[in-house]
Amino acid sequence: MTTDTPDMRTVHVALGSRAYDILIGGGLLASAGDTLARRFPGARAAIVTDENVAVRHAATLKQSLEGAGIATATITIAPGERSKSFAVLQQVVDEVLAARLERGDVVIALGGGVVGDLAGFVSGIVRRGMAFVQVPTSLLAQVDSSVGGKTGINTAHGKNLVGVFQQPGLVIADSDVLDTLPEREFRAGYAEVVKYGLIDRPDFFAWLEANWRDIFSGGSARVEAIAVSCQAKADVVARDEFEAGDRALLNLGHTFGHALEAATGYDSARLVHGEGVAIGMAMAHRFSSRMNLASPDDAARVEAHLSAVGLPVAVSEISGDLPGPERMLDYIAQDKKVSRGSLTFILTRGIGRSFVARDVPASEVLSFLKENLPS
Amino acid sequence: MTTDTPDMRTVHVALGSRAYDILIGGGLLASAGDTLARRFPGARAAIVTDENVAVRHAATLKQSLEGAGIATATITIAPGERSKSFAVLQQVVDEVLAARLERGDVVIALGGGVVGDLAGFVSGIVRRGMAFVQVPTSLLAQVDSSVGGKTGINTAHGKNLVGVFQQPGLVIADSDVLDTLPEREFRAGYAEVVKYGLIDRPDFFAWLEANWRDIFSGGSARVEAIAVSCQAKADVVARDEFEAGDRALLNLGHTFGHALEAATGYDSARLVHGEGVAIGMAMAHRFSSRMNLASPDDAARVEAHLSAVGLPVAVSEISGDLPGPERMLDYIAQDKKVSRGSLTFILTRGIGRSFVARDVPASEVLSFLKENLPS
Ligand SMILES: NC(=O)c1ccc[n+]([C@@H]2O[C@H](COP(=O)([O-])OP(=O)(O)OC[C@H]3O[C@@H](n4cnc5c(N)ncnc54)[C@H](O)[C@@H]3O)[C@@H](O)[C@H]2O)c1
Ligand SMILES: NC(=O)c1ccc[n+]([C@@H]2O[C@H](COP(=O)([O-])OP(=O)(O)OC[C@H]3O[C@@H](n4cnc5c(N)ncnc54)[C@H](O)[C@@H]3O)[C@@H](O)[C@H]2O)c1
Ligand SMILES: [Zn+2]
Ligand SMILES: [Zn+2]
Repeated sequence: MTTDTPDMRTVHVALGSRAYDILIGGGLLASAGDTLARRFPGARAAIVTDENVAVRHAATLKQSLEGAGIATATITIAPGERSKSFAVLQQVVDEVLAARLERGDVVIALGGGVVGDLAGFVSGIVRRGMAFVQVPTSLLAQVDSSVGGKTGINTAHGKNLVGVFQQPGLVIADSDVLDTLPEREFRAGYAEVVKYGLIDRPDFFAWLEANWRDIFSGGSARVEAIAVSCQAKADVVARDEFEAGDRALLNLGHTFGHALEAATGYDSARLVHGEGVAIGMAMAHRFSSRMNLASPDDAARVEAHLSAVGLPVAVSEISGDLPGPERMLDYIAQDKKVSRGSLTFILTRGIGRSFVARDVPASEVLSFLKENLPS
Repeated sequence: MTTDTPDMRTVHVALGSRAYDILIGGGLLASAGDTLARRFPGARAAIVTDENVAVRHAATLKQSLEGAGIATATITIAPGERSKSFAVLQQVVDEVLAARLERGDVVIALGGGVVGDLAGFVSGIVRRGMAFVQVPTSLLAQVDSSVGGKTGINTAHGKNLVGVFQQPGLVIADSDVLDTLPEREFRAGYAEVVKYGLIDRPDFFAWLEANWRDIFSGGSARVEAIAVSCQAKADVVARDEFEAGDRALLNLGHTFGHALEAATGYDSARLVHGEGVAIGMAMAHRFSSRMNLASPDDAARVEAHLSAVGLPVAVSEISGDLPGPERMLDYIAQDKKVSRGSLTFILTRGIGRSFVARDVPASEVLSFLKENLPS
């Protein structure tokens, strides 16, 4: 990591010919035009964004680009997970083609993970691959979805089942744009920040316990948290770009979390992704302690921190009815990370000591679910 | 090229970690199961095919696969270019997911270029990339579209504008399946065989002049022609996998050809792709001679051979009305190979001496079109 100043950081994602930088700091949106003009000389651009982000930040970005001589079309989609569909994919592809962009031109994702996943997929398939830049505007997107090159849409068979690996050429994370993010979304993104500590950075987790209020209020602690998170994700991605092994660690909390999202019908009024991850991480630590892999004290410490910031840690915190343990096990087994029928979980030996556990017995998971779920 | 026997050839496509073999010979369809079982141990498969090919060849392939212990689903699409659409893409994606195939499982394209382009795209995006095998059944697919990893669909903005680079893990070209191909389709595919001679293999072109009847009737001349063509394409692709430069040579005859296809509304009753390429190659040679780059004798020799096999060489051979020269220039300039407004053509200094000519003056092209088109 190149440390520029406390308020401006650069994380390099080392992927050989697909290597790129993540720029992190306040006010970067207004200077994005110059940044892009230097890196993509002569290119034109299409900004893909959603309605919520468009009203708050699209004009700043468009003015910055056009001020730097980059002709820019703007494509706005409806906010929310439902836009990660074939229908919206086709619509955005058509609009990029209608703008007559060519292969060297740039698709810019300005938004949260939904916009990033969709626009990244678009940029990966129009003319078999255009240039792509991420300008993430949610905390989740800044610390997670904009890094690593996974893109995609949902189908009736499950989430993110269709897409491509498409690394961006550049990520511009303006930490100030998070000031307009709803508090609940900020908290949800924060669950992913905690995740990096729990995977393999115990000191970072301790720092988060001490500094989370500063991160929520902005400034250099926020920049630091984003930078460490990006570096953590970049390290894992560089080791395993195409998810053949190690990258699975990033799914800490996600196997339970995805099952909960499915069980609540992806109804964001009941549960957003980061909340599912928070409950999932708490469950992964409790399950690890139940399997005598980790100490119950660690599980308690994880729960205490998540609760302190206002994230849920137990299934009982989800409003409305939930399916019973057997049905929940079905949701878990449908998860696409289940390889050829065996159950794979990310478990832990303690804070910052997570590992990929293959062949976890379904019977153990079921007993655990029975203790943790309404029956 | 590994020469096994005159009736069985292997062409290796040297693409580093994405390298693969093309197996060429009679009867390979019936042994495909064993071949796949060796290369993809434990995998399941989905055959994507079209109705015409399904009735003739799908049972042979499916039996061979299941005989080798490979559980196989079959997905059949309507024949023809119209299946290269978002709607059919989504439908096939859904069927592959419904068959619960996982990342290591194989999508097999059994058909012509339409099936190959569509199924290849599907395999590239389901679960962000599944294994992919081409079993091309048209001559065009065996010598051209199944090699090189370009996949995609059409949009209202143009052909092949949406897709991915997705190299197959294996290509199985059974030269006997071409016996059921309609004669007109065989001839159209043959235009691409001629193309390789004209690009940089003058001896191969001379051999084709002498042996084309044997190629049309089958046997070892056909296997030889397919093998040399695959090797020619593989050489270009290995030099330029992502079409940054040299690969453009493969577009010999295609700039004019695509414009003619567009001008005839992609109506295959009037013009199929290979016929457009044949006319386009003849035009590229005449244009080169007009620009004093090549001798008119070479242009005449190319025309003579294409005419001998029954391929068209002039726009006047297309039935029905055609747009005038100015409109045709528009079609040419819309071609996606036009980079940032400049006209790029593949021109030639003689048979087997083609080159990429950038910045060809539009005025020269227009004058040439005026001599070659109804005004
Ligand atoms: N590609 C990956 O590696 C990866 C990783 C994790 C998650 N994801 C995906 O990311 C998506 C979730 O991302 P998300 O949480 O950012 O959701 P999101 O994109 O839906 O954004 C959340 C909400 O915040 C709004 N918003 C975003 N930025 C804002 C801002 N600055 N001010 C005001 N409102 C703003 C959005 O309009 C939306 O309503 C999911 O689809 C998930 O599958 C992808
Ligand atoms: N990916 C590439 O690099 C590349 C290169 C060149 C062309 N293409 C694409 O390939 C397509 C054209 O391919 P094509 O000419 O094979 O067209 P096609 O797939 O439509 O096949 C032509 C016709 O022959 C039938 N057919 C195929 N095999 C048969 C057999 N053995 N017996 C009887 N009928 C058979 C098909 O049903 C169809 O009606 C176009 O879409 C073009 O864009 C792609
Ligand atoms: Zn997540
Ligand atoms: Zn062609």
